[in-house]
Amino acid sequence: MRGFSHRVSVDDALKWLTEATAPLDAEDVSLDAAAGRVTAGHVVSNQRVPDFARSMMDGYAVRAEDTEGASTYNPLRLKLVGEILPGAVSDVIIKAGQAVRIMTGAAVPPGANGVLPAEYAEEQNDEVLVHATVSPGKHVGQPGEDIQQGDVVLPASRVLRPQDVGLLSSIGAAEVSVVRRPRVRIVITGDELLPAGTPPHGCKIPDANGPMLSALVHRDGGEPDVGTIVADDPDSVLQAMRSDADVVLVSGGSSVGQEDHAPRLLAEHGELAIHGIAMRPSSPTGMGRLDGRLVFLLPGNPVSCLCAYDFFAGRAIRKLGGRNETWPYRTMCGSLVRKISSAIGRLDYARVQCDDAGIVPLAVSGASILSSTTRADGFVIVPADSEGFAAETEVEVLLYD
Amino acid sequence: MRGFSHRVSVDDALKWLTEATAPLDAEDVSLDAAAGRVTAGHVVSNQRVPDFARSMMDGYAVRAEDTEGASTYNPLRLKLVGEILPGAVSDVIIKAGQAVRIMTGAAVPPGANGVLPAEYAEEQNDEVLVHATVSPGKHVGQPGEDIQQGDVVLPASRVLRPQDVGLLSSIGAAEVSVVRRPRVRIVITGDELLPAGTPPHGCKIPDANGPMLSALVHRDGGEPDVGTIVADDPDSVLQAMRSDADVVLVSGGSSVGQEDHAPRLLAEHGELAIHGIAMRPSSPTGMGRLDGRLVFLLPGNPVSCLCAYDFFAGRAIRKLGGRNETWPYRTMCGSLVRKISSAIGRLDYARVQCDDAGIVPLAVSGASILSSTTRADGFVIVPADSEGFAAETEVEVLLYD
Repeated sequence: MRGFSHRVSVDDALKWLTEATAPLDAEDVSLDAAAGRVTAGHVVSNQRVPDFARSMMDGYAVRAEDTEGASTYNPLRLKLVGEILPGAVSDVIIKAGQAVRIMTGAAVPPGANGVLPAEYAEEQNDEVLVHATVSPGKHVGQPGEDIQQGDVVLPASRVLRPQDVGLLSSIGAAEVSVVRRPRVRIVITGDELLPAGTPPHGCKIPDANGPMLSALVHRDGGEPDVGTIVADDPDSVLQAMRSDADVVLVSGGSSVGQEDHAPRLLAEHGELAIHGIAMRPSSPTGMGRLDGRLVFLLPGNPVSCLCAYDFFAGRAIRKLGGRNETWPYRTMCGSLVRKISSAIGRLDYARVQCDDAGIVPLAVSGASILSSTTRADGFVIVPADSEGFAAETEVEVLLYD
Repeated sequence: MRGFSHRVSVDDALKWLTEATAPLDAEDVSLDAAAGRVTAGHVVSNQRVPDFARSMMDGYAVRAEDTEGASTYNPLRLKLVGEILPGAVSDVIIKAGQAVRIMTGAAVPPGANGVLPAEYAEEQNDEVLVHATVSPGKHVGQPGEDIQQGDVVLPASRVLRPQDVGLLSSIGAAEVSVVRRPRVRIVITGDELLPAGTPPHGCKIPDANGPMLSALVHRDGGEPDVGTIVADDPDSVLQAMRSDADVVLVSGGSSVGQEDHAPRLLAEHGELAIHGIAMRPSSPTGMGRLDGRLVFLLPGNPVSCLCAYDFFAGRAIRKLGGRNETWPYRTMCGSLVRKISSAIGRLDYARVQCDDAGIVPLAVSGASILSSTTRADGFVIVPADSEGFAAETEVEVLLYD
């Protein structure tokens, strides 16, 4: 057993990670699965929308010039020659002095160039009394006014919003090309662990990291795959790390103790590029590759696991999925109620609460206190070149919610 | 055909809605489905975490007093009496002058009251050379230091975070009681509509609102259920509106034209509480109840549909699901590059782009231009008592992303 002889800076670890990750290939998904996915390229419309002049109101399609001067006090009369409903094909052609009843969304017939809204009209037998002047083009949606054929309707790398999915439907797209979701294998090791959902028993404790990592991966657009708990022996750990996933997360056994097999195995069978990072918690974090896949060795202590995931693994998973790799948290600024102490050369991840008085650092003794991250509203990052922040310093908080 | 004789203010419509909605009942979900759900009540732990004194480091469990004065220059010697691995039961008791090798997470044995980290120790045969003084309690996680039995570990109405799910697992919970997700029936009407995913054809257009509403409902924590497109006839519309869902959204036919069946049907068979709202777009929006269920009548024009959903239906769905009913959008402030005109007495939903120059209102002609909501970065709300905002006014933008 020995400590880490050297710890890499967070910046250097991130530099390695940035070079090691690039967005995955594309896949087509149907519209009902498209919201929240990331476009793999520009989306170009091969349709004009609308493809016909359409009425924007319930009313009467007219020749605008036939309504000139009409008002409530001077109603003009047009001959009603029929009705056009949305989606219906009509052979009506509007001639001078004629109008046709038309509904919103229906095709404006040839000859007509404006729509008189229903509230400015009155039907009398086979005539329409026109109570307002219609200017040319009024209440008519012009062909292509929404989208022209060949328009780039959505850019690449767009996280698809609900209205984007509606737009895709409006151009007749049944599918859209998106970046594939990273498949993430979650390997939970630790002979002291019971399966999640089991009460603690004796000196065995239920696995907290599996459910947490699974939710984190899901949040970051990946597809988590949590297997059963893996025994702390080299063969079992190596077998669990070999996976057809895009990313492998190993929780536990990431340090330099005698039961910490994963770093040694990764160095032996793949590449252990980073091991030991100058940060608190999460210093026993490792990163590398096995069979060409990214592998993250995350500490078993749950706060360290969360912090290491968020600093490194989550970032990589978002980038692989074509997403913004920066923090997925909202930020706020506030004044520290108490000081936060740190050490030069080490980045600190300090859990805080935000209340009316300001930003309150949580006094916590260790990386195993998971409740420190559930009682906290967020965290403050103390950079490696800082000894911490004095009380009343204005700090930025990354908010967990 | 007639226009709306009266339009309710947005505030009054929201007032009705607030009184008409309350969170749904609770259900138990398993941990793997818990992230993002909303707790139905306080979560109380019936476990102490940890339930035993545990080592926080790889090293040696010792009696602190046996290490007093130890340093690199003055190593002390302790007899190594065994090893304790995480999860393993041990009958070791540490007596004066003894140490036991221990791994992170393992139970600290009786007699020991501190852990000497491995990097400050050296093994020689059956002895440990101690290179540092261990203070009492050092590197020992005390029973209950994370959670005490009876602690409220999570408050009611909490949107469960990944670490919350981890915490639930750590107290042995296999399930958690959460507010039931609102089931939302989406009824798409319009004889001009083709199913989503079909190319436009003649004067028929593919349905954009079904996929959009489905994604919106999903975003807001509801379970969408989109059926096939419903024909514009009263029997079909009424049958589709009758549902065992918690909320019914009807898209299209929400105004006062002859093909607008839904408002009449709702008034006849249930309650049409609100119909016609002083806003642009979305003024032909209705709300009410049928068979005790909330029904929203949303305009068929896609921008109106989005806006009416976001102002009213989304808010109700979030509240039913126990969530924060306010806007689900981030906000930013900026200076308007051009004026936004509105009319006193009417609230406006103005789509804008945010660029380096400031906030740029999009010039759009109508509620049918869905691309105005995909080109926009967000929207500005012009309240009913305002004639709009002059150029260079500082405005708040609600961001779509």
